[in-house]
Amino acid sequence: MGERVAFLGLGVMGFPMAGHLVQRGHEVAVWNRTSARAERFVASHRARAASTPAEAARGASFVFVCVGRDADVREVVLGEGGALGGLAPGAVLVDHTTASAELARELEARATERGAGSLDAPVSGGQAGAEQGALTVMVGGAEPAYDRALPVLRSYARQVRRLGPAGSGQLAKMVNQICIAGVLEGLAEGLHFAEAAGLDAEAVVDVISKGAAQSWQMDNRHRTMLAGEFDHGFAVEWMRKDLGLALAEARRCGAALPVAALVDQLYGEVEALGGRRWDTSSLIARLRRR
Amino acid sequence: MGERVAFLGLGVMGFPMAGHLVQRGHEVAVWNRTSARAERFVASHRARAASTPAEAARGASFVFVCVGRDADVREVVLGEGGALGGLAPGAVLVDHTTASAELARELEARATERGAGSLDAPVSGGQAGAEQGALTVMVGGAEPAYDRALPVLRSYARQVRRLGPAGSGQLAKMVNQICIAGVLEGLAEGLHFAEAAGLDAEAVVDVISKGAAQSWQMDNRHRTMLAGEFDHGFAVEWMRKDLGLALAEARRCGAALPVAALVDQLYGEVEALGGRRWDTSSLIARLRRR
Repeated sequence: MGERVAFLGLGVMGFPMAGHLVQRGHEVAVWNRTSARAERFVASHRARAASTPAEAARGASFVFVCVGRDADVREVVLGEGGALGGLAPGAVLVDHTTASAELARELEARATERGAGSLDAPVSGGQAGAEQGALTVMVGGAEPAYDRALPVLRSYARQVRRLGPAGSGQLAKMVNQICIAGVLEGLAEGLHFAEAAGLDAEAVVDVISKGAAQSWQMDNRHRTMLAGEFDHGFAVEWMRKDLGLALAEARRCGAALPVAALVDQLYGEVEALGGRRWDTSSLIARLRRR
Repeated sequence: MGERVAFLGLGVMGFPMAGHLVQRGHEVAVWNRTSARAERFVASHRARAASTPAEAARGASFVFVCVGRDADVREVVLGEGGALGGLAPGAVLVDHTTASAELARELEARATERGAGSLDAPVSGGQAGAEQGALTVMVGGAEPAYDRALPVLRSYARQVRRLGPAGSGQLAKMVNQICIAGVLEGLAEGLHFAEAAGLDAEAVVDVISKGAAQSWQMDNRHRTMLAGEFDHGFAVEWMRKDLGLALAEARRCGAALPVAALVDQLYGEVEALGGRRWDTSSLIARLRRR
């Protein structure tokens, strides 16, 4: 039984996610800031392109947002012609953007004013996860809205979890990125040291990856790191955005993140090397080029 | 077919390792700085206690060393009554101590002078790995010595790998510890942030541990970290010793280890909290107690 849904933001994540909604039989209205991408979507999917977010949202039971930053979400949801203007009472706004917990709380307040629900629902799993419908979704918000959205979220998610009230999904995503920052810099330093010390780094990884040094990043990124290939994966500029959110939130809640703060600075040096679009594993490039 | 072997150093690692050698039918002579421990060993194993390392080494085909630091190895092997004095031509000295690559090269040179072989062979897998005979052994040294030692090393190792000439085992172990330093501090900061932000940290780990933030440490240490239990595992003072070796070697080979150097300092703060004997995952205690 298809729902009427809107999908706002057809980037590398949103495009395949909206595609899964169509495939599951939902009646999808799409909108994208660059309209050519929306036209490309409707040319290949049974869906309609709306002229504004508000128009897409009108009559929809679920309004999904997947854009870049807090400011983009504000514009697409709260701005002129924004989704909020079309949000029906009883509908649920689902923001897949990795954004601040503060924004998530504000969106929930604004949705509630219109008799609608709101969930913050950042994802992990990357472009491949979006294409394969195998994303992880970390959700914050009220339980009734979560329960209603869950079956629809399963269109593109392998794992969906509500972690608490509005903002909790965003905070959980920040925990994810903080852990990754430490793992990746440790791995980069380990591989860089192996090279500098004249070891066969590939052989070393083969040995140590079965024990206490093992990580998803070691298993999945050491080869490309050793080869210096970074034209894939999750871009440095997006990681810096996410670490910026985590560091700002840490200031508010009084957490200390010495290594996350340092790694954010190291990514700044990767950007200075021309690596804004390189995968996050490119921390090793900075160590090599000093 | 049992070999005549000597085992020098019956600490939490050496004691069970020597036990596996006895079980495999080798003729074992043991020596320990605190002789009570050697007496305890021979009371429960078919083995003999030697009065000096040299006496233990005399007539042995393999002489295993498993002590604390470079200085201990020097004393036990090169000092008065040290193993070198008893090392037979054709025997192989196997140092399981995590020590410097420089020392490994020196030991090989000294063993070679006596017509013997030498391998640096630091292990990972901890006390549990030693007890279960499931250690990983990272070996540096000449191939003939390695080929001869391999069947004996398998007495307590699940994984044995030669990584290059003398010192390569030590360097590989340093890579392992560098990676772990980053992983553990990232995990500690992530969990600390989750707590400070009011999240259910256990639920967050449950979600993110299936993706790019996953690590052996996350899988195996997050519960005790959240519970503040650190009376197990690998002690902070030993991790600092290992990071000290890595940082000194990095100076020599020109590698940059900004996070490993920082984490070494953070461990210093854990020690100041009384945590010298706490597990390495106690980095979170420092974040909590600021």
